[in-house]
Amino acid sequence: MNSFGRRLILSTFGESHGPAIGCILDGLPAGLPIDEAFIQSELDRRRPGQSALTTGRKEPDRVEILSGVFEGVSTGTPIALLIGNTNQKSRDYDNIKKIFRPGHADFTYWQKYGIRDYRGGGRSSARETAARVAAGAVAKLMLAQLGVTVEAGILEIDGIRAHRFDFDHARRSPLNALDPDAEAAQQEAVLRAKEAHDSVGGTVLTRARGVPAGWGEPLYDKLDARLAEAMMGINAAKAVEIGSGCQSARLKGSENNDPITPEGFLSNHSGGILGGISDGDEILVTTWFKPTPSIFKEQQSIDTEGNPIRYSLKGRHDPCVAIRGTIVCEAMAALVLADMALLNLGRRMEHLRAIYSRG
Amino acid sequence: MNSFGRRLILSTFGESHGPAIGCILDGLPAGLPIDEAFIQSELDRRRPGQSALTTGRKEPDRVEILSGVFEGVSTGTPIALLIGNTNQKSRDYDNIKKIFRPGHADFTYWQKYGIRDYRGGGRSSARETAARVAAGAVAKLMLAQLGVTVEAGILEIDGIRAHRFDFDHARRSPLNALDPDAEAAQQEAVLRAKEAHDSVGGTVLTRARGVPAGWGEPLYDKLDARLAEAMMGINAAKAVEIGSGCQSARLKGSENNDPITPEGFLSNHSGGILGGISDGDEILVTTWFKPTPSIFKEQQSIDTEGNPIRYSLKGRHDPCVAIRGTIVCEAMAALVLADMALLNLGRRMEHLRAIYSRG
Amino acid sequence: MNSFGRRLILSTFGESHGPAIGCILDGLPAGLPIDEAFIQSELDRRRPGQSALTTGRKEPDRVEILSGVFEGVSTGTPIALLIGNTNQKSRDYDNIKKIFRPGHADFTYWQKYGIRDYRGGGRSSARETAARVAAGAVAKLMLAQLGVTVEAGILEIDGIRAHRFDFDHARRSPLNALDPDAEAAQQEAVLRAKEAHDSVGGTVLTRARGVPAGWGEPLYDKLDARLAEAMMGINAAKAVEIGSGCQSARLKGSENNDPITPEGFLSNHSGGILGGISDGDEILVTTWFKPTPSIFKEQQSIDTEGNPIRYSLKGRHDPCVAIRGTIVCEAMAALVLADMALLNLGRRMEHLRAIYSRG
Amino acid sequence: MNSFGRRLILSTFGESHGPAIGCILDGLPAGLPIDEAFIQSELDRRRPGQSALTTGRKEPDRVEILSGVFEGVSTGTPIALLIGNTNQKSRDYDNIKKIFRPGHADFTYWQKYGIRDYRGGGRSSARETAARVAAGAVAKLMLAQLGVTVEAGILEIDGIRAHRFDFDHARRSPLNALDPDAEAAQQEAVLRAKEAHDSVGGTVLTRARGVPAGWGEPLYDKLDARLAEAMMGINAAKAVEIGSGCQSARLKGSENNDPITPEGFLSNHSGGILGGISDGDEILVTTWFKPTPSIFKEQQSIDTEGNPIRYSLKGRHDPCVAIRGTIVCEAMAALVLADMALLNLGRRMEHLRAIYSRG
Repeated sequence: MNSFGRRLILSTFGESHGPAIGCILDGLPAGLPIDEAFIQSELDRRRPGQSALTTGRKEPDRVEILSGVFEGVSTGTPIALLIGNTNQKSRDYDNIKKIFRPGHADFTYWQKYGIRDYRGGGRSSARETAARVAAGAVAKLMLAQLGVTVEAGILEIDGIRAHRFDFDHARRSPLNALDPDAEAAQQEAVLRAKEAHDSVGGTVLTRARGVPAGWGEPLYDKLDARLAEAMMGINAAKAVEIGSGCQSARLKGSENNDPITPEGFLSNHSGGILGGISDGDEILVTTWFKPTPSIFKEQQSIDTEGNPIRYSLKGRHDPCVAIRGTIVCEAMAALVLADMALLNLGRRMEHLRAIYSRG
Repeated sequence: MNSFGRRLILSTFGESHGPAIGCILDGLPAGLPIDEAFIQSELDRRRPGQSALTTGRKEPDRVEILSGVFEGVSTGTPIALLIGNTNQKSRDYDNIKKIFRPGHADFTYWQKYGIRDYRGGGRSSARETAARVAAGAVAKLMLAQLGVTVEAGILEIDGIRAHRFDFDHARRSPLNALDPDAEAAQQEAVLRAKEAHDSVGGTVLTRARGVPAGWGEPLYDKLDARLAEAMMGINAAKAVEIGSGCQSARLKGSENNDPITPEGFLSNHSGGILGGISDGDEILVTTWFKPTPSIFKEQQSIDTEGNPIRYSLKGRHDPCVAIRGTIVCEAMAALVLADMALLNLGRRMEHLRAIYSRG
Repeated sequence: MNSFGRRLILSTFGESHGPAIGCILDGLPAGLPIDEAFIQSELDRRRPGQSALTTGRKEPDRVEILSGVFEGVSTGTPIALLIGNTNQKSRDYDNIKKIFRPGHADFTYWQKYGIRDYRGGGRSSARETAARVAAGAVAKLMLAQLGVTVEAGILEIDGIRAHRFDFDHARRSPLNALDPDAEAAQQEAVLRAKEAHDSVGGTVLTRARGVPAGWGEPLYDKLDARLAEAMMGINAAKAVEIGSGCQSARLKGSENNDPITPEGFLSNHSGGILGGISDGDEILVTTWFKPTPSIFKEQQSIDTEGNPIRYSLKGRHDPCVAIRGTIVCEAMAALVLADMALLNLGRRMEHLRAIYSRG
Repeated sequence: MNSFGRRLILSTFGESHGPAIGCILDGLPAGLPIDEAFIQSELDRRRPGQSALTTGRKEPDRVEILSGVFEGVSTGTPIALLIGNTNQKSRDYDNIKKIFRPGHADFTYWQKYGIRDYRGGGRSSARETAARVAAGAVAKLMLAQLGVTVEAGILEIDGIRAHRFDFDHARRSPLNALDPDAEAAQQEAVLRAKEAHDSVGGTVLTRARGVPAGWGEPLYDKLDARLAEAMMGINAAKAVEIGSGCQSARLKGSENNDPITPEGFLSNHSGGILGGISDGDEILVTTWFKPTPSIFKEQQSIDTEGNPIRYSLKGRHDPCVAIRGTIVCEAMAALVLADMALLNLGRRMEHLRAIYSRG
């Protein structure tokens, strides 16, 4: 329920306003150098409060490794990562104690559990994604050893679409924008929404390079199915496409089939996945995020007793969750791919012979 | 790897041209009347060869229940379903024995396993979905007892979109078309592609009604994430949307948030899911299918030795996989929802007290 | 619930008197030659009716492979095995339709499910172990390629204990007796109990050779824990020991610790497992079976309405379940070990590099 | 790998000499009052250094709840428990840095992972059981609401056996002794071994009362199989018996079958489990622990380069691990039972109707 993965298993815990959030990452191979500074730098990328484009909350998000690493190297035992909560302003949330915020999980948690930690969204807060990013950083370290990289950037905000996909630019951009030419307009849309006490949606393109053919397990751990699950599970995600995605459905078979040559595929409508298994080409995943449900405009809702209310939200919120969501998309894709790298081991008898004939 | 679900677990087996395909459905509650005729009728809906719109293969697809049912009622033990393969023309596939068909899993299975049953796609054949439909029928029987129904229909084919969503019509339509007004044009597109030795893509809208608030497990078995995984795992699926999906990303927060009233939500952009948990409204999932990769036009590929080839596929194939995919979408949604109904049990202490205080 | 294993996953189905029993074995590596005659020969070893020492039921137990094997070699897809039920005498069981047999699962299935297939024990019948033996045979084929063998034999019957452990003799003995010198007395005890309309218990020693150091996953998939689970899950098992087992608890640490030398361990009290991980020595597991609960002596029980009754069982039953249980112990140990061989892949980064640097 | 359970899932992390150990307990129902003082009191029972009978190490073992509890009540989200390591004397272990201690996991971790945190046994240290005890305390809180209690005590030490089973006495006894009459001799055996720089084994009887009929999942999550797995997975456990266990194998069927009457069973050889499902009687599990492998007598081993060595262990160690193991047995049994209580939900359609017809 709170775990993700088959062989590289992430289990997270923590609420927005508890003492800490964190995770256990189980199944990481022994012998991987763990660059703690890299993990911290990934968290820093996700951290809010770095520009006017994200929430004004300041969360230092210092990660502490509690286990699984000895003298800088993974030991094969579970890696526990702890991130303290230091900027908890519980009073900000007193006014929503008895209110179900539209577009939020307040109502559904209440219906499901009959109790909820209403402070900052509790468990449903996007704050939990910090644990994903920290674990995703470890997955990236593992993938790097196999020549696999995962990157993401903003494809679209408020309907303004990128036409170039420059992942290096995205990395330097406060908006994580893929297209330098679209960036100004995208940024303008975010700030305009913010001023209007509203929010905008956005779209993230995630790309993995260097994935060898053969990752993904038919028929119910297909690489595309697991990526879809991973991305749709990120807060505010409402759609996921693989490769040409929706557009593929509007092509003819003769247009959409990627011709195969001895040098590789001539196109990549498939997004690097055929039959649920990687084909050696770039993996491409597009994730669509709804606009932040936390807006300051007056909204219509009910309270926990079922009475109709009108209210205006207070606090500090991202005007566009897709921006910081970019880092989370990278992390989730890295976790899926590292998991698939491990799951694929043992799919051929020669794997077993390669490992067990050594000694 | 070949199992799906957490508490209601579907495990399928079988290749297109082996003696049989089938499945085990484990975790079904005892005491459910099993209407074998209904299961068969669902298989009949998926069965090809019923119109010019689908493949000409004739597969009777008779289902046999091997276990788990006693005197017409489920016993709580695993239900095994067997469907014989009777229309295997292995010779049809001799010409693709050494060829990787573009858009198919031939290349990736070969890369992954180093061996493949090339006859009719083997395990990656859409034939496997018959097992899903049979198991999905059992899930529907369970859901019906809880007042939940699952329906699906064609939203779009070759870019021609439905503007009315008439699920009753879809059920009677050979195309499974939701919109009687769009049906003729959609049908025309399919037949035109077929004549051109090509294929078209399509889109399926799946709707579940009667789902109570509270189904779906945060944070890694969210209802939307599981639905995305289920749908993206269907052969040829390339995109999945929940509720307004991609369109949500182009709305403002003030437009996209569904206002809550004592009588329910005023809109349903969320597709009935908030924070990964059902909110009591209709569940809406859109699945985008690429055009059938099996086309008769000449294509460019390589053989198993890596030599470039040009070839033309033979055999009988659906010109639009989305049509029969409609029934598979229903089945997968039903399996996810039935699983979630079971997973949600025990989420409150009062559930335990209700069951265990009975005596 | 009806599945066993983490990476090599056995899912069984079927009741004693349904049309068939069988299983799906998922996760077997591709490229393993599947010797169907060997699988059948293992089933033949388990088959009843071969001597006066076992039940007089004749069950041909022919196994059919439905999937996962192409041209004699595993393809990496699920292997489905089907075994028809041909000797169903349902009338034999009419007299127990409303009776809970002492020592059987009748009462507990009724309590749990509120319904039961009473014919021949239904799902709880030892007949289900035929599926385990068939799948275990496949696991043995895989292990053989890694130099691992699994054997078992009778250690004790009715308190008469073996003092020699001759696994070759066990294989030829109708009693599966390890000690030729104890065999006659053990056999005599079985026949005496049979004549007295009673039954006897017995003990099985299972030995695995060739297991390399390193199999078993701390801390909750320890090799010994998984073997204990596997053995205790066999019908009628009541105790499991690893290595010197209970006896170890009566030794001093200085006696029980196995000294390590460059040539290996000087003793094997540990049974080849330290800290839940194989140490390279022989794996030794002892499983204790209660006497067959099906006896013809009059017994005291209640009926499904709760009325006290006295009754005498009819039918044909093994006077000592441990005898045929021997083959099941081998199968379960083989399944655990093959699973652990696969689970251990990826525990070191060098495993990943060995596999993924090849291409 | 480091997780235990199906619906109530314990995931632990941490090494003996890292900054902390801890766990996530996922799947606990919402609405359970969490008595933090009770959790601490359970940890206190396990804590060493309370008498001459256990190791002299002082570990305060203060537990901190990081998540999943709001205003004293469980919220249904994961409960994270943290226990700091405060008494780490890493220098004590410098002398074993390159030595494989006989009877320990040093050799096997090294073989498996190629790296090990040698300080205090690292991950394989019995210190990890503190996390089990903390989580087991939460499971006990849940079970208490269902009228189920779990207790354990020492049955045998160094061959000296209890003849009375007084669980109340065990709770007050520093030895956790079940039999006041055997306690002095058992204690004497422990102290004598300690003086001789040696150690002794012991046996723990665990009893659960109030378990309703119907818990346990055939065929591969049988209650007895899961208890066997749980107990055998505790450090130093070498054998597990259910009910009369080994002794059952020496009885006749007519002696071992527990007669059923309208008032219940006339005997309990089965240990409260038939066909893997609880029958409503007391659950009885016996766990056999080997003598502590850490002894001060000189022993024979090899170093990490494979050279033969003789060495004497230093440090502080329990002369009999079974004593503190008693608390761990309780915890593991409680975790299994709570898991089974949850797993059983949904086994009948009437469970679903009871929950979902409420609103």
